Amino acid sequence: MKNKLTELLDIKHPIIQAPMAGGITTANLVAAISESGGLGTLGAGYLNTSQMRKEIREIKQKTNHFGINLFVPNEFSVSTSDINRAIDILQPYYKEFNINAEDFEVPSPMTERQTFIEQVQVVIEEQVPVCSFTFGIPSTEVIKQLKQNNIVLVGTATTVKEAIENEKSGMDSVTVQGIEAGGHRGSFINDSNEGLIGLMSLIPQVVDQVTIPVIAAGGIMDGRGLSAALCLGAEAVQMGTAFLTCIESGAHKVHKEVILTTSDDQTVLTRSFSGKWARGIKNKFIEDMVEKEEELPEFPVQNSLTKKIRSVASIQSNRELMSLWSGQSPMLARNTNVKEIINEVMAETEKILGDLK
Amino acid sequence: MKNKLTELLDIKHPIIQAPMAGGITTANLVAAISESGGLGTLGAGYLNTSQMRKEIREIKQKTNHFGINLFVPNEFSVSTSDINRAIDILQPYYKEFNINAEDFEVPSPMTERQTFIEQVQVVIEEQVPVCSFTFGIPSTEVIKQLKQNNIVLVGTATTVKEAIENEKSGMDSVTVQGIEAGGHRGSFINDSNEGLIGLMSLIPQVVDQVTIPVIAAGGIMDGRGLSAALCLGAEAVQMGTAFLTCIESGAHKVHKEVILTTSDDQTVLTRSFSGKWARGIKNKFIEDMVEKEEELPEFPVQNSLTKKIRSVASIQSNRELMSLWSGQSPMLARNTNVKEIINEVMAETEKILGDLK
Repeated sequence: MKNKLTELLDIKHPIIQAPMAGGITTANLVAAISESGGLGTLGAGYLNTSQMRKEIREIKQKTNHFGINLFVPNEFSVSTSDINRAIDILQPYYKEFNINAEDFEVPSPMTERQTFIEQVQVVIEEQVPVCSFTFGIPSTEVIKQLKQNNIVLVGTATTVKEAIENEKSGMDSVTVQGIEAGGHRGSFINDSNEGLIGLMSLIPQVVDQVTIPVIAAGGIMDGRGLSAALCLGAEAVQMGTAFLTCIESGAHKVHKEVILTTSDDQTVLTRSFSGKWARGIKNKFIEDMVEKEEELPEFPVQNSLTKKIRSVASIQSNRELMSLWSGQSPMLARNTNVKEIINEVMAETEKILGDLK
Repeated sequence: MKNKLTELLDIKHPIIQAPMAGGITTANLVAAISESGGLGTLGAGYLNTSQMRKEIREIKQKTNHFGINLFVPNEFSVSTSDINRAIDILQPYYKEFNINAEDFEVPSPMTERQTFIEQVQVVIEEQVPVCSFTFGIPSTEVIKQLKQNNIVLVGTATTVKEAIENEKSGMDSVTVQGIEAGGHRGSFINDSNEGLIGLMSLIPQVVDQVTIPVIAAGGIMDGRGLSAALCLGAEAVQMGTAFLTCIESGAHKVHKEVILTTSDDQTVLTRSFSGKWARGIKNKFIEDMVEKEEELPEFPVQNSLTKKIRSVASIQSNRELMSLWSGQSPMLARNTNVKEIINEVMAETEKILGDLK
């Protein structure tokens, strides 16, 4: 299947693996996608430069084609009283897990900006072929520098307006993230309560307003999703949850199990884990936080405050306190290998389009 | 295009006009859809039996094939203090429009149930070929009676669970309503904050769990939407906003204009007009009510309380106080006639599927 986007990204199949930050996108997973004809992506949002470099080099031993995703830093303010209130709210978990409430790094907008600039330099030095962005659009200077180094740039949008801004900035392509998508919402202009648009509406409206190729993200798990996205005008799909439960993925066993065994289509949006809205499967932590949702500090402050809780929960395989990100199609998830998923998505797509014709 | 559903509904094209209650689905609109090969539907939720009979007979003079939609009554409680609080909230509008706050009918669950039973009798007496339901599933007795009279029954679901319940009840088909859909959410099991699923996720998960044919509703406006819905496993689409702005529709001129001139994809969910969650274009009334949203009485009480405000706003063409229902794809709306829309949707679908094959 060939189109403008598969040529731009130099891939055989119009399938991109979503950049799931936090240890899911192992070198094995990224390479398996790329070696099966799609585009694997390292979710580097939370990595410092030395971690990034290590991961990139590991991937390079397995494949020479892949992408990387960075979080564009947003302005945020954090007062001591905000932090103290959040610590009060989280106290029961700190206590349960013997976590010292003082013992966490307070992120600052300046260090966040500095980290981002350094991450961009690593992308350039390591000549990563494709770089995508979440939570906003980088500065003109950063975009110019990356383009001078022939790195293909992909932005993220949750509304028509955000897609137009991505095109204006010089992005080569834009991923439109529907309400179906798991993990963090990439919204950066609209309040996320306004940008909650289903792909059935988002894709065609964006396609009509931009000239760069559009990638569809959210709830796409099989050939039904890929063929539908293509009908709506997208040139490729980005799949997260579908690869998260694969054998090659680095997701926690419990995270995979929860998704694979759900008999329900219910997921929820929460900002309780990181301070930004994200979609996952409901558990005790999310339920406990519902009433306090609006009081919690912004990203990445809340993320720092809950980091140790999540890491202890992970070690203890405690599903009630982990962030169990999932898109809206958990019932379609399977536990198989990447090559099989990709081959089946392509075969099913061909069959559907052939049968309907 | 033939499938199980087009045969069941005896239609040429897999296109159903959404039952928009409140004067939009004129005999002209309903008949134009059916005479163009789709299925027109009278939105009868708010009609009493004599209004219903009049509308049905008017439609029958223009076409012999069409459907009707009824609201399944839900239990609700209403206390004097609830009503007084709501009247307080609405007081500024009552005052502005010289509406007497005492002067409205308090709906009761018993009269609502009675009206529904009478509506069902009219459907049977008038031999309406297809009857669809919103807000729930009717009793076994009602379903049995309608089926004995060879009326095809279509339920509404916003989650997999609700779709399964529809199949169990004996519905011949189920319409799955994605988050993209304009107007009222048909949710009846899940709290609507949980059932907000995009069609990209909802259709395939439902199709895997039921054997009755599935109709996709929400944000579908053109051949891109129809072909995508078919790829996902639906056998037909239900289109509301796309027909609302047609020449034949009875929607208020201002309502059509607002949708046709929007340069944005933004709509909102509100329960401020009726007490049930519904999607429309934001205006002053919705914004004024945001903070009080959760305090307002249930459907149909709030609906009764705001009825006169909406009707005066309508007469005055005041867009700020009307309910401007719209799906999430207002940018794709067009002001043309029904026949042209249907012919173009079918031609575009064929072209898309041909090109992608």
